[in-house]
Amino acid sequence: MSTFGLIEYQDASAEVRAIYDDIMATRKTDWINNFWKAIAHDPANLKRTWESIKAIMGPGAIDPLTKELIYVAVSVTNNCHYCIASHTASAFKKGMTPEMFKELQAIIGMANETNKMVTGYQVEIDERFRPPLKK
Amino acid sequence: MSTFGLIEYQDASAEVRAIYDDIMATRKTDWINNFWKAIAHDPANLKRTWESIKAIMGPGAIDPLTKELIYVAVSVTNNCHYCIASHTASAFKKGMTPEMFKELQAIIGMANETNKMVTGYQVEIDERFRPPLKK
Amino acid sequence: MSTFGLIEYQDASAEVRAIYDDIMATRKTDWINNFWKAIAHDPANLKRTWESIKAIMGPGAIDPLTKELIYVAVSVTNNCHYCIASHTASAFKKGMTPEMFKELQAIIGMANETNKMVTGYQVEIDERFRPPLKK
Amino acid sequence: MSTFGLIEYQDASAEVRAIYDDIMATRKTDWINNFWKAIAHDPANLKRTWESIKAIMGPGAIDPLTKELIYVAVSVTNNCHYCIASHTASAFKKGMTPEMFKELQAIIGMANETNKMVTGYQVEIDERFRPPLKK
Amino acid sequence: MSTFGLIEYQDASAEVRAIYDDIMATRKTDWINNFWKAIAHDPANLKRTWESIKAIMGPGAIDPLTKELIYVAVSVTNNCHYCIASHTASAFKKGMTPEMFKELQAIIGMANETNKMVTGYQVEIDERFRPPLKK
Amino acid sequence: MSTFGLIEYQDASAEVRAIYDDIMATRKTDWINNFWKAIAHDPANLKRTWESIKAIMGPGAIDPLTKELIYVAVSVTNNCHYCIASHTASAFKKGMTPEMFKELQAIIGMANETNKMVTGYQVEIDERFRPPLKK
Repeated sequence: MSTFGLIEYQDASAEVRAIYDDIMATRKTDWINNFWKAIAHDPANLKRTWESIKAIMGPGAIDPLTKELIYVAVSVTNNCHYCIASHTASAFKKGMTPEMFKELQAIIGMANETNKMVTGYQVEIDERFRPPLKK
Repeated sequence: MSTFGLIEYQDASAEVRAIYDDIMATRKTDWINNFWKAIAHDPANLKRTWESIKAIMGPGAIDPLTKELIYVAVSVTNNCHYCIASHTASAFKKGMTPEMFKELQAIIGMANETNKMVTGYQVEIDERFRPPLKK
Repeated sequence: MSTFGLIEYQDASAEVRAIYDDIMATRKTDWINNFWKAIAHDPANLKRTWESIKAIMGPGAIDPLTKELIYVAVSVTNNCHYCIASHTASAFKKGMTPEMFKELQAIIGMANETNKMVTGYQVEIDERFRPPLKK
Repeated sequence: MSTFGLIEYQDASAEVRAIYDDIMATRKTDWINNFWKAIAHDPANLKRTWESIKAIMGPGAIDPLTKELIYVAVSVTNNCHYCIASHTASAFKKGMTPEMFKELQAIIGMANETNKMVTGYQVEIDERFRPPLKK
Repeated sequence: MSTFGLIEYQDASAEVRAIYDDIMATRKTDWINNFWKAIAHDPANLKRTWESIKAIMGPGAIDPLTKELIYVAVSVTNNCHYCIASHTASAFKKGMTPEMFKELQAIIGMANETNKMVTGYQVEIDERFRPPLKK
Repeated sequence: MSTFGLIEYQDASAEVRAIYDDIMATRKTDWINNFWKAIAHDPANLKRTWESIKAIMGPGAIDPLTKELIYVAVSVTNNCHYCIASHTASAFKKGMTPEMFKELQAIIGMANETNKMVTGYQVEIDERFRPPLKK
């Protein structure tokens, strides 16, 4: 379900099908999850979003599993239930162990706590931390 | 600067100094950043927070650098400037390369974008993603 | 459903009915949605909220449909499912086309993405953008 | 200022300059604001972000000024000071009047208020508002 | 400073001055803080906001100091620096002790932490907690 | 339900049972709510979180009911449905009256509104509000 309903593969235009095919091929899977079927009502957005995700979440300086952990951390902080469910499943598929899941949740909780303590105490940034960083 | 000012090492009680010492020893550094000096006005909170951070951010199923990347992702999503500055510096110290920093920011941006597209399109969670996960 | 349940028209006090009547007359509709029935347990808040909404969302320098688009943008960013559902429906009623809905979601997604990239890169405000603006 | 500093036009690679040129030509202006100079350290991200912004914020079903109002609404809700400063300036440049600015702020405030009242009262979504919408 | 600058008492219209006078009389103080001087550019919004604040933050079932603590908790969670600074000062003026301030920050931090752990673990609401509550 | 399911008392390890027992004894109740059963998969986190909650939410400079009101305010602002449901129930149990509930929601709504108006108008912090506070 979604505002305009979901576009299934058999009902999709050739343009949308090509993206669905690329999603399934890239992810080595045989199904498409609801997010893509919902935004397929806007093929330009579907294409742009998929190409960005594919480029950003693919191999790079950060490994694919770590990228999923980061995605989950953002999604939990944003309280996005769909994203938490889908990216948690995806992280498990990419190799996250139950131990890693638990540590991830503890880090997210702790970061959210200290983010607010820093803010509530109105702490000024240390000179050494100010950008630009000497890298 | 902070609501009650900062407690420097020389002005700290023995209880607070012991924690400052442990922070410096654990982090192999010779200074204390403002966050700890600000919450040192509440020694019980200082102790609890440091012990939690030490346990959660230390060695485990997730490596220390990845933990910092997750901390930065939460801090950016929460818009906490102090936390972004301090944990970005910390991540570089633990081995984050400029390439990793850039990928991290791209992932955070993308996750925040898709979190909102899912929400705005009111997408329902796929059956396969619903907890509990079959691990 | 709501914390205290919903107050239906037939069970409402004269004071609450008068506001329900004004909501229906102003909106040219014959029903009251759950939000109002929930806060009707606090008639002073119901009155204050309705009068503010009526004044702010009515005719002005910004047209009523644009006002709804802005309301949806805030609600999506806040992840408020009730508000997204009700204001998306309201925007369609006021003339939002499917094309506008799709562009709206793309803008919301993009704004949430760049908001975080700016924050993560710790970008300083350009001098030219600093208030007060020379209007 | 920014994590890695800002890349000025004269110091930019040909690839980055081409994007700076397109930004200035598209916006009919002769300068580049800090956001682009900060993310120019990641040319692929600079290109992807600019092309998305250009496609999404350009002419469409929603007029350019309304798009800026929506951008400001998201940025205020996210508390992104850089984005508020830059998009408020941009909105004025595209024709936002002081009256429109004031109404915009009142709507954003009101939406944030009712978003939380709905949530705090745990109001259930009305049947009539549930997706998919009969469009 | 603010988008349109600040409207000082001597430059204010009679309508705005009357509200400034009421703010000072109600708060038993002889100055007006920047928030009011900024939104005074929109006298209708100034009036509506002040009257709502006056009604909501005045004597009621919750005492004025507790109301300020709640205001601070929301402002820290929203990361609103102006609001944190002004309402923290206001809370101290109304009798918040340093001990209360410290407990307040610890509660805010803890609530933000558990809010995210609940969300990350995708915990379902217990039957006993579901509204409507039997009050 | 939760990512890994819920750990019931009869299936819990001695370590987890000891914490469940302490939760029930401290709260003078005979059941455990889902949050604890979900994070019990991580006994170290369960222990740390419970001990922190017990220390922070117990008797202190702020009374237990006020602490719950603050917890609800954070949870509503964070849009955490589980937390709103559980802490609203807890607040009623600790003596919150319907009148207090209504005032609480009005304060939370108002604070969220003014947080955004301050931010949207880009209001600078008054000198008198800047930390450190002269306490």
